[in-house]
Parts: sequence; structure tokens; C-alpha cells
Amino acid sequence: MTYCVGLLLNEGIVLLSDTRTNAGIDNISSYKKMFTWSVPGERVIAMMTAGSLSVTQTVIARLQEAIDDPEGGSVTPSILLAPSMLAVAESVGNLMADVRTEISGKLGLQAGMADASIIVAGQRAGGRMRLFMIYPEGNFIEATADTPFLQLGEHKYGKPILDRVITPQTSLANARKAALLSMDSTLRSNLSVGMPLDLVTILADQLSVASEERFLPGDPRFTAMSDAWSDALRQSFEAMPG
Amino acid sequence: MTYCVGLLLNEGIVLLSDTRTNAGIDNISSYKKMFTWSVPGERVIAMMTAGSLSVTQTVIARLQEAIDDPEGGSVTPSILLAPSMLAVAESVGNLMADVRTEISGKLGLQAGMADASIIVAGQRAGGRMRLFMIYPEGNFIEATADTPFLQLGEHKYGKPILDRVITPQTSLANARKAALLSMDSTLRSNLSVGMPLDLVTILADQLSVASEERFLPGDPRFTAMSDAWSDALRQSFEAMPG
Repeated sequence: MTYCVGLLLNEGIVLLSDTRTNAGIDNISSYKKMFTWSVPGERVIAMMTAGSLSVTQTVIARLQEAIDDPEGGSVTPSILLAPSMLAVAESVGNLMADVRTEISGKLGLQAGMADASIIVAGQRAGGRMRLFMIYPEGNFIEATADTPFLQLGEHKYGKPILDRVITPQTSLANARKAALLSMDSTLRSNLSVGMPLDLVTILADQLSVASEERFLPGDPRFTAMSDAWSDALRQSFEAMPG
Repeated sequence: MTYCVGLLLNEGIVLLSDTRTNAGIDNISSYKKMFTWSVPGERVIAMMTAGSLSVTQTVIARLQEAIDDPEGGSVTPSILLAPSMLAVAESVGNLMADVRTEISGKLGLQAGMADASIIVAGQRAGGRMRLFMIYPEGNFIEATADTPFLQLGEHKYGKPILDRVITPQTSLANARKAALLSMDSTLRSNLSVGMPLDLVTILADQLSVASEERFLPGDPRFTAMSDAWSDALRQSFEAMPG
């Protein structure tokens, strides 16, 4: 499993992903699911991946190849040359659908194993910040003011805190806190979601990655936040009328 | 969907169920999923059901028929005559497996539609309180001191609060509060779980149902608790270091 969450606020974008990948419960590895590209001052793009690792690695590798050599004859267009974030989402969706078809063909009856999803976020100069979730079939949805966050993978344990506190007006600091607490609830309940975590922040109209942080197992900031939240929940619970 | 939760504490048992049943998102009804039987001073049994309504209604109807006329030649033994709670769980498991086989045969390719699960709780004089979860195939697991609660149906949204506060030492008042807050988180996030709610409390060694409560939509006690919890969560969140 995986847990990734992307939040689209007026002040910017917060993205958080875990790194656990498993092929069966007895085969667990760690792979980064967070990818960023930027042309400072012109555009910034970030992606988080979930699902079949062979599909997502192929998608990211082809995107990177097209970026590295846009004239190289790759059929994938460079996302750094796309005219808009919408065009980036369409391009990634088309590529993922193609890769899924290729790999499904090899898997035969297990074709459903080639499903993956990607969150695409970013901004191009002249456009607004956008946050998309691309489905295995290549179609996608977009975060809006009504629903300013999108989740991939094990979304249920971490959704209640987001439902309660996230609006477009939420500050980036609070969004970061909510994303980490949402991840904390997920880590506690689903062993197939695991540390380290990658957290990326993008500020509105800055057209660059504002920060990239990694939280390793036992990270003191994350542990302190997790403990403080547990204590706060327990105290609130005890104080509540029954 | 459904959400039912049963908690086994040293002081007693708390059971909470919703009542929403749906056959597709455009066909929603309300059915009680909570059933109790008692022979005061001798035994008390409570059950909560989830899954195929045709299976659970048939199971409950046959159990009731065997209780009403234990000499009537029913192949189902009366659970009020079973020698122990373990025997009750086995009996309900066998009956559910039989009903599932019967109904699966009628459903053909859609045999998976005949899956249901039941939580069985109670105590017989001379024995301890027991809490079982019976799977569609008739096998079952039992709550223990390590994991003193069992959930049916949409279990994820409501699990974090239980994981954080429930131990065998939790008071019945706090267990009741935690069960209702667990349901509240589930109601907020899954429309296929819905009011009214049924809450049953059994006190250790009393061998009777201590209380049966129904919470209708808009119930002022439930609404006050839900609002207080939302406020407490938001305040704790705001007060937390980022």
C-alpha cells in the first residue's frame, strides 16, 4: 500500500508521501514516491506515485527521458515544455494509460496488477496552482475549493483530520501539520504504509520548490508531533462529557 | 455498508451499530442490525450483523425460531440452551455457513453477494464474558486483552480513536463515548453508514441487558458529543506545535 496526500491552499501546495512498497507482506522495500522538477521562475511540477511500481517507475523514467532530451525522438512530450498544468496532467495520464496497456499485456490474467495512480501538482508562470489525481486509466480529477485535498492509496485512516481542518484558507504551516497528522494516523493503522516520509512545499507564484524534507524513522520532530497529538486526543477525550 | 463495533471491557460489553442498508447507492433503507436475548440471571446474548441482508435475516430468523420452539425439529439448536458462549459462536458460525451455501447456490456467479458477518457477545452463568466475530465462512475470532474490540463493515475511519483509548481497563462510560465517537467519524466519511444508531450495554456478571438505547437522526446527546469532539480536535490542532 501507499499513502500520499496533496493539499491545495491559497498560500501554496503541501505534498506528503510515504516510501513503503511491498510485493506481498513478506517482501517490503523502500522507494521514493515523490518527484519534483522546476524551471525556476517559469514552472514547478511535483508528482507522487502509488500502485504498481513497474508502472510508476516506467512512467517517471519516460517523463525524465523526455525532459533530458526533448528532441530525442521520444513519443512522450517533455512536461517542462507543456503549455499548462492541464496539459501536463493530460500528458501524464496518456503516458500512464499507455504503460498500463503495455504491462497489462505481459501480465495476462493478472492485468489488474498494472494499476497505478499519480498526483500531479504545480504551477506554470501565468497560470494558477493546480493539483490533479490521475487514475490508472489516464483520466483525472482536480482539487477545488470545495475539496482542496487529494489522497492516494490508504486514504481512510487519515481522512477525518483533513475533513475537519483543511480549507483553501488554511495556512501552509497548519496544512503541513495536518498532512503529517493524517500520515501519523495511517502509519499507526496500516503496516504497509511506512517511514521515511517525503514532504514538499510549493509557495504560490514562487514557481520553485520551497522546501523538500525527509523524515527518517524516529525523526524527533515527527515523533514529538505524533506524541503531542496522542496526548491532546486523550486529554480531549477524557475532558468530554459522556 | 455497515459499521458495528463491540468492546469487551473488564466492567462489561458495549455494542454499537448503525442501521443503514443499501442495495446500490440509489436504494437505501433502514434495518436494525442489533439483536439481544436474555434469560435473566442465566445468560445474555447480543448480536450485530453486517453484509447480505438476505443472509443475516435468514440467520436471525432461524435462531429465533429455534429459541421459540426448541423441540420443533429445527436443525438449528437454540442458542439459549447452548452450554457456553463458545458453543453459541460455533452454532451461529455453522448456521451462517449453511445459509451462505444455500443462498450462494441461488446467486450463481454472484455467489460473493451472500457474504455476511456477525459479532456475537454475551455471557453465560459460570463463564466469562466473550466477544466473537464470525466470518462469512463460519469461522470466527475472539476479542482478547490485547485487542479488546472487534469491528464489522466500514472499520477504518473509526479505528484510530479506539486504538488510542480502548484497553480492558477502560470504564464503560468511556467505552460508550469512544464507540459513539468512532461511529461519528464513520458517519462523517461514509454515506452508506447512517443513523439511527443502536447501543447496547451489558454489565459483567449481571447476565442481562443493562441498557438498550436508540439514537435517532438529530439526537441532541449525539449531536452535542459530535460537536464537542469536533471543537476539541480543532482546538488541540491549533494548540499543537507545528
